[in-house]
Amino acid sequence: MRRLRQKKSTPEQVAGNGLIDRRLFLAGGVALASGAARADPLPIEPYMRTPGAGFAAYGQPSNHESKTARIFASAPGTTGTGASRTPLHLLDGMITPNGLHFERSHSGIPDINPDAHRLLIHGLVRRPLIFSLDALARYPMESRITFLECAGNGQLLNQKEPVQTGAQALQGLVSCAEWTGVRLAVLLQEAGVDPKAQWILAEGADAAGMSRSVPLAKAMDDALIALYQNGERVRPANGYPMRLLLPGYEGNTNVKWLRRIKVTEGPTMTKDETSKYTLLGADGKALQFVFPMEAKSLITRPSPGLAMQGAGLYEISGLAWSGYGRIAKVEVSADGGKSFAPAALQEPVLSKALTRFRIPWRWDGGPAVLQSRATDASGYVQPTRAELIARRSPNGIYHFNGMTSWSVAPNGEIKHVYA
Amino acid sequence: MRRLRQKKSTPEQVAGNGLIDRRLFLAGGVALASGAARADPLPIEPYMRTPGAGFAAYGQPSNHESKTARIFASAPGTTGTGASRTPLHLLDGMITPNGLHFERSHSGIPDINPDAHRLLIHGLVRRPLIFSLDALARYPMESRITFLECAGNGQLLNQKEPVQTGAQALQGLVSCAEWTGVRLAVLLQEAGVDPKAQWILAEGADAAGMSRSVPLAKAMDDALIALYQNGERVRPANGYPMRLLLPGYEGNTNVKWLRRIKVTEGPTMTKDETSKYTLLGADGKALQFVFPMEAKSLITRPSPGLAMQGAGLYEISGLAWSGYGRIAKVEVSADGGKSFAPAALQEPVLSKALTRFRIPWRWDGGPAVLQSRATDASGYVQPTRAELIARRSPNGIYHFNGMTSWSVAPNGEIKHVYA
Repeated sequence: MRRLRQKKSTPEQVAGNGLIDRRLFLAGGVALASGAARADPLPIEPYMRTPGAGFAAYGQPSNHESKTARIFASAPGTTGTGASRTPLHLLDGMITPNGLHFERSHSGIPDINPDAHRLLIHGLVRRPLIFSLDALARYPMESRITFLECAGNGQLLNQKEPVQTGAQALQGLVSCAEWTGVRLAVLLQEAGVDPKAQWILAEGADAAGMSRSVPLAKAMDDALIALYQNGERVRPANGYPMRLLLPGYEGNTNVKWLRRIKVTEGPTMTKDETSKYTLLGADGKALQFVFPMEAKSLITRPSPGLAMQGAGLYEISGLAWSGYGRIAKVEVSADGGKSFAPAALQEPVLSKALTRFRIPWRWDGGPAVLQSRATDASGYVQPTRAELIARRSPNGIYHFNGMTSWSVAPNGEIKHVYA
Repeated sequence: MRRLRQKKSTPEQVAGNGLIDRRLFLAGGVALASGAARADPLPIEPYMRTPGAGFAAYGQPSNHESKTARIFASAPGTTGTGASRTPLHLLDGMITPNGLHFERSHSGIPDINPDAHRLLIHGLVRRPLIFSLDALARYPMESRITFLECAGNGQLLNQKEPVQTGAQALQGLVSCAEWTGVRLAVLLQEAGVDPKAQWILAEGADAAGMSRSVPLAKAMDDALIALYQNGERVRPANGYPMRLLLPGYEGNTNVKWLRRIKVTEGPTMTKDETSKYTLLGADGKALQFVFPMEAKSLITRPSPGLAMQGAGLYEISGLAWSGYGRIAKVEVSADGGKSFAPAALQEPVLSKALTRFRIPWRWDGGPAVLQSRATDASGYVQPTRAELIARRSPNGIYHFNGMTSWSVAPNGEIKHVYA
């Protein structure tokens, strides 16, 4: 048996089962390339002999990348009630391209004419106001690179046995974009908020009338009326022509197709916050209005669907995020949690944004279990799956931020396991 | 005449002709919205009464945004020799979505099978190496948010009279993305660079065999073999499946469809660096191998094609960048350069990335001339158009980083002017 977990550590090792120092990977001798026998062994390809394709007004990915796509499922009898998931295992970096940003819709995507669309701010304000897109375009804009995560992301880890699927199906309801828009605080200030007000209600213009209550303090802090997503106008699936953006808060509160902000004394107790999105504890008590998504991380490469190609050097790469601020540390284990080593974090590490982590791994060809564990700037440490399960009711499906584990078999196959 | 350039300054003014303090814009009383007469004047729209559209594997922008597109032109008799330009005036933030990243191709876009593609590193190395995409995927990756600018961007400002067009046609050969890939230094180290070597040659797999010489020092510094662009695989128009990324260097040296890196003693003097891409000075001498793009900025809103809607408050917004590092300051003028005030820079301000700047402006309804001026961390200040013209030959078309000026007429029309 080639299992080497208890092997005596070498100077290059930073944790068990082959996690090594980054500098050693960079020092050469990696030997993943083939030697080139002749001075110029590259043939002139046919596409070098004739001119290639012309220009396009709006470009698309390569035809060879058709697998880099979202997977989606709808509730029975509907086409637009459900979610689509980002192929995290096929991406790198921290930005999610707009065409692959996850979607969660409660009754499909409305086709909204931007010229006719209005945003109403009313309720406990001195003067109710209506904003067209043209009016909003004259206000000061701000940009924030921030993740969005569905409150239900990761809920399959609640199952008794590990569901045999990968990063996309298990954790693909998280994405990250640069959002640009007008600070909600500026608009509320102009409307004149009544001192009695403590909450807002945000309502979408979809057929579900999706609406959520949000503390006024968040609305006055870093909330945006987002008009742009990675430079261009917000995509239809993500709220065109405008959405509420509440950095760090669970996805559904970032109301899409935003049409109305009502300033209120208390929460409105809409159907979307009484029938869903509460956290059921092991003691049977439910917590309501737990908004920020707790620190979480996930190894995206290697992960199921990406087979290993024999023993040797690999980079383990993944994503970490926290609704409470910056990621402070990500630790990686290759021995199922027995030992951990800190991964490198890709700069810039931004508050409430996806953070890419990376660590080199010398796979000895034996069985291994890969895990990652995020710590955010508040000191909060991502729990193991077992720790989270112990705190929660088996019926509690939201905010599942326990650790995900991948096993690597000697034949290179990678599987979802509980460890 | 309503021209108020010499109007006595008020406490809120930060420069002539209406540039005001950001805090005042944020203090309310902006009055761009309409008052809402009734408590809930928003009708229930038809799209709120029936379920909307379903999910998509790869999403697209709204049908209402068809104008947010690249414009392009090809050399006579070709379809793929030319460039397409980013609609900077319709975007916000710093990221350019992949479908709108500018393109510059010398003989069209080759259709490359990624599984068959190879990268050869040879020349003055101990052992020539060939890399498949699978081999590269095992190396350490790094991400950099960086702009790319065509060396010829802005060259229309060389014309004697201001060409009557806007930001896209004049300056749209610049974009910004998060690029992820393998450091070229790691691969060169593995091949073993001969101490005599001072340069590399980078060759593309397009029908033009586009190739450029690059100093070895840059290759060993921050150069990447880029595989990902804003999270997904590099787009075909931007070099799929891999391109050279040389942060800050003129666009064409970031060789697309990269197939070969040859390590050499001196520059190779390819057709692409002897027939093009030299800087012709006023004294008739040409500078060759001037790689980094100098600091530059541009106001994108307001700009031609975006009409003003009457006197009052607006935000002036634009982009600044420098191939030498971070942007330290952007100043904006509303009086044709008589006075300038510093704009706010959107965080994070990253080295060699586009930087969004913003400043509020109270337009009095009279004529105005808007300009922006970038200063980078090295202390270099973007020149006026006239200063740049004086230094250059009229036949020198590259690296045109002089200031762009927009005039605003009392009827709200915005035009390209020289000022």
